[in-house]
Amino acid sequence: MSTDFRATLETFSNPYPHREYRIETICPEFTSLCPKTGQPDFGTLTITYVPDQTCFELKSLKLYLQRYRDHGAFYEQVTNLILDDLVAVTQPRSITVIGAFTARGGIRTNVIVEYTKP
Amino acid sequence: MSTDFRATLETFSNPYPHREYRIETICPEFTSLCPKTGQPDFGTLTITYVPDQTCFELKSLKLYLQRYRDHGAFYEQVTNLILDDLVAVTQPRSITVIGAFTARGGIRTNVIVEYTKP
Amino acid sequence: MSTDFRATLETFSNPYPHREYRIETICPEFTSLCPKTGQPDFGTLTITYVPDQTCFELKSLKLYLQRYRDHGAFYEQVTNLILDDLVAVTQPRSITVIGAFTARGGIRTNVIVEYTKP
Amino acid sequence: MSTDFRATLETFSNPYPHREYRIETICPEFTSLCPKTGQPDFGTLTITYVPDQTCFELKSLKLYLQRYRDHGAFYEQVTNLILDDLVAVTQPRSITVIGAFTARGGIRTNVIVEYTKP
Amino acid sequence: MSTDFRATLETFSNPYPHREYRIETICPEFTSLCPKTGQPDFGTLTITYVPDQTCFELKSLKLYLQRYRDHGAFYEQVTNLILDDLVAVTQPRSITVIGAFTARGGIRTNVIVEYTKP
Amino acid sequence: MSTDFRATLETFSNPYPHREYRIETICPEFTSLCPKTGQPDFGTLTITYVPDQTCFELKSLKLYLQRYRDHGAFYEQVTNLILDDLVAVTQPRSITVIGAFTARGGIRTNVIVEYTKP
Amino acid sequence: MSTDFRATLETFSNPYPHREYRIETICPEFTSLCPKTGQPDFGTLTITYVPDQTCFELKSLKLYLQRYRDHGAFYEQVTNLILDDLVAVTQPRSITVIGAFTARGGIRTNVIVEYTKP
Amino acid sequence: MSTDFRATLETFSNPYPHREYRIETICPEFTSLCPKTGQPDFGTLTITYVPDQTCFELKSLKLYLQRYRDHGAFYEQVTNLILDDLVAVTQPRSITVIGAFTARGGIRTNVIVEYTKP
Amino acid sequence: MSTDFRATLETFSNPYPHREYRIETICPEFTSLCPKTGQPDFGTLTITYVPDQTCFELKSLKLYLQRYRDHGAFYEQVTNLILDDLVAVTQPRSITVIGAFTARGGIRTNVIVEYTKP
Amino acid sequence: MSTDFRATLETFSNPYPHREYRIETICPEFTSLCPKTGQPDFGTLTITYVPDQTCFELKSLKLYLQRYRDHGAFYEQVTNLILDDLVAVTQPRSITVIGAFTARGGIRTNVIVEYTKP
Repeated sequence: MSTDFRATLETFSNPYPHREYRIETICPEFTSLCPKTGQPDFGTLTITYVPDQTCFELKSLKLYLQRYRDHGAFYEQVTNLILDDLVAVTQPRSITVIGAFTARGGIRTNVIVEYTKP
Repeated sequence: MSTDFRATLETFSNPYPHREYRIETICPEFTSLCPKTGQPDFGTLTITYVPDQTCFELKSLKLYLQRYRDHGAFYEQVTNLILDDLVAVTQPRSITVIGAFTARGGIRTNVIVEYTKP
Repeated sequence: MSTDFRATLETFSNPYPHREYRIETICPEFTSLCPKTGQPDFGTLTITYVPDQTCFELKSLKLYLQRYRDHGAFYEQVTNLILDDLVAVTQPRSITVIGAFTARGGIRTNVIVEYTKP
Repeated sequence: MSTDFRATLETFSNPYPHREYRIETICPEFTSLCPKTGQPDFGTLTITYVPDQTCFELKSLKLYLQRYRDHGAFYEQVTNLILDDLVAVTQPRSITVIGAFTARGGIRTNVIVEYTKP
Repeated sequence: MSTDFRATLETFSNPYPHREYRIETICPEFTSLCPKTGQPDFGTLTITYVPDQTCFELKSLKLYLQRYRDHGAFYEQVTNLILDDLVAVTQPRSITVIGAFTARGGIRTNVIVEYTKP
Repeated sequence: MSTDFRATLETFSNPYPHREYRIETICPEFTSLCPKTGQPDFGTLTITYVPDQTCFELKSLKLYLQRYRDHGAFYEQVTNLILDDLVAVTQPRSITVIGAFTARGGIRTNVIVEYTKP
Repeated sequence: MSTDFRATLETFSNPYPHREYRIETICPEFTSLCPKTGQPDFGTLTITYVPDQTCFELKSLKLYLQRYRDHGAFYEQVTNLILDDLVAVTQPRSITVIGAFTARGGIRTNVIVEYTKP
Repeated sequence: MSTDFRATLETFSNPYPHREYRIETICPEFTSLCPKTGQPDFGTLTITYVPDQTCFELKSLKLYLQRYRDHGAFYEQVTNLILDDLVAVTQPRSITVIGAFTARGGIRTNVIVEYTKP
Repeated sequence: MSTDFRATLETFSNPYPHREYRIETICPEFTSLCPKTGQPDFGTLTITYVPDQTCFELKSLKLYLQRYRDHGAFYEQVTNLILDDLVAVTQPRSITVIGAFTARGGIRTNVIVEYTKP
Repeated sequence: MSTDFRATLETFSNPYPHREYRIETICPEFTSLCPKTGQPDFGTLTITYVPDQTCFELKSLKLYLQRYRDHGAFYEQVTNLILDDLVAVTQPRSITVIGAFTARGGIRTNVIVEYTKP
């Protein structure tokens, strides 16, 4: 599954590859499906990374995240999966993905996943 | 007492056991009884943990926390007890439980308890 | 059912019965049970009234609202029922009860009920 | 189209049909598709009505609104259409539907539609 | 009792007696004693009036309100009493006193009293 | 000048011309030039209207407002001018335009202009 | 005194004299001196008016308000005085001046003055 | 003086003495007297401690803090004194007391005092 | 210049000289003059220090800061100068002064200066 | 290109070159053009630096940033470019530039760039 989605992501060359700087991208319009109930889940994704040679392109990120609209996955899976795809495509120096999902049954959940280039 | 409640908690296998990541769960609809006066107490529980092999399932957590509705316990006991139960059931790498209780007599109390796997 | 709960409410003589003035009481710690699922509901009740000869006593209101803790009723019923009880006991010049319930399935509901002495 | 969606809405008898009271329902997880671009739109729907003989059931409302997830319609159409469906199904004394959509191109739009029984 | 407190209030001539204008005074540091329990109550008083020939002086208002520090009175009495004293001393065209008291037992109360010169 | 800008605005047929409903459009990214100093001004435009036969199209509104980027006009002129153009193009039942401009010299200004079809 | 200050205010011709519209000007950097203690007072002035033939110029308003920096006057006088000067200079259809002064001795005061052309 | 007040504080055995956890207590209704002017001071006390063998009881803390109502002491003294009393009575592993006092003469002051068991 | 202002500052003996604790003083009513334009500047000063043998007295601080009312100095100078004066007069263990100035030309500036006793 | 813009920046001698202190400058009225679409971008620039011998002058910074109004550059380029120009002109001990851009397609981006003198 992941392979298919990942192809949506486009990149461009980091214009300042010699400098270590940070890009934060906040996506409050994320929605996927609960694999158990089929009901839609909603959340805000916050992606923070230090690019190396490559940055992801924002419009393609938007299209990539829209692919989850009809896709069933648990909170923990979704957040880890997006991290894996962004690491595979941009090979960043480091990256954090935070999935902050809206309340279900009066309970709200955030998943925080990090990666640092070895 | 703790044994009985604890059985309500269900778990599932951590889908990314090799990665160290964090799950935050916020439960603003917690209520128990004051053991001295029998009056209801209200609060928000925030549970943050780094899972190891096991995650707790959210619906069973909701049912577990509802068991406190008719149960008498002081703030310090409740918060430590919930930490003990979650540690016993999920054996996390680390976990924090914060109980933020509403004001009584103009005074508001938070209890913050942490555990790290030795 | 309503008769039984209503008896919990105590009153005192309005100390300024000749003046038309307003009392607002906000109760953010209301909880009852959903009659369909048995699951707890949570909400904030806001009661605003112009007393006539009688005011309700705040401690007895607290105990009265606690009676709903183990009681099953839909949002619309609960809010109308509380209005009926407060009207029966205090015979106010006018009164409004607002029940603002927490989100379920991503949907939040408020019920607003008013009464004016004919 | 509207007929098909409308059938999802279930109702129950207003428990207090003789009293004129108001129910507010806030749905922050609404999403539909832009008919021009195919891109998802997001927004918060706020429905306020004075029921007559019939109330709409909240779970069926949730399912009804989810039908728009794969449906293309402009902001003005969506908001008017939902009002039409709710009027047809519950025949309320009066109703207001507010669609507050998230920003596109730096511009944010709200649509406010009202109906009063003649 | 009221007579004694009232004498603390000093006034000055309204500098613009021919114009109908409004003065709002907000006092967030009000405290009195509960006559039943002897425990301190806390609240914010908001006084809004249209002066006629006379305005109350702010420093004397501060000293007047401090007289309640060791004085026992219920919320409804305190708010009505302060209105009575301010009316007696300044004879305003109209005046509103709002007493917004902090939560006790999880319940918060506001008392709103108004007077208009006949 | 106004004629030239106005041509940028595109419209579409009001899908519910028989119903009186309201559309609010908020544009926080407005910028023009001060005709006296040549310095850029910034503000938020809020347009609220009841359409008759015609609605303005949002993308063309965005392009229309961008025309002011290199255009010099005082706050009062800009706000009135935009109202005039929107009235000319959409012939609404009523419309309000609010221009809320950022502070200059520690002073902030809002201009509120309204039109109702005779 | 008033005459001297008033001369600082400059005006320009209302560019839309035939339309009734509103201009709000917010000045959070107002400061004057307390005539009793010589201590500085601070506040926010909000001026809202419907111009007739004349608008006041913003830079001259700033200089006019700065004249109060070394000037002693009570809250009620200052607010009424500024209204008088703005009425004299611009002859508006209507105008409101609100002086919201910072807390002294734990008490905060707002003065609201209005004028409508007869 | 301190001895007399201190006796009001009651304690109970820490139910989890082997675990290092934190208790935060927020008291927004603190009031004392300025020793120079005799005028009341108001503030919020925030007490955070890691208990060792003993916790302080919340109702007795409330009564202890009420003892300051008729007691004159400067901000710095009050905050240090409360820390001294709480250390003497509960012998905590560590404790912080923050006194955040309301504005006087336009100036607001916080005092932050810490203690760690040697 | 600095010498003259500095003399306004009065001190008192630190009541707890053996304990390292922190005092924060927030002054939102600071105003000085721009030396280039003569126009008034406004800002909030936040002073945080760990006293040694001496504390500054709050009323004298207020009078000291008022001396800047008719004094011309740039943001950087004012903030450093106040730090220098407070260090000279109280010889603190450490101190931070933050000057947060209001916007000019749409640009807002904060200056943060620190000192630690060698 | 950068050379041309950079010349707009004026500097003055750091009045306290021997002390290490920080200056924060917040510019919420930044706008440039998207090089791909030609559409305007909007954002808030926050510049924080520790000056060495030289500070940048605020009015010239305003004029410098206005040069981007008709200039096309991506978020990452703009933020890095401004850092480069400020480093070249003021040779600071250290500097951070944060560009926080408004949402496009429901996605918001911040770019954080830092420099420390070797």
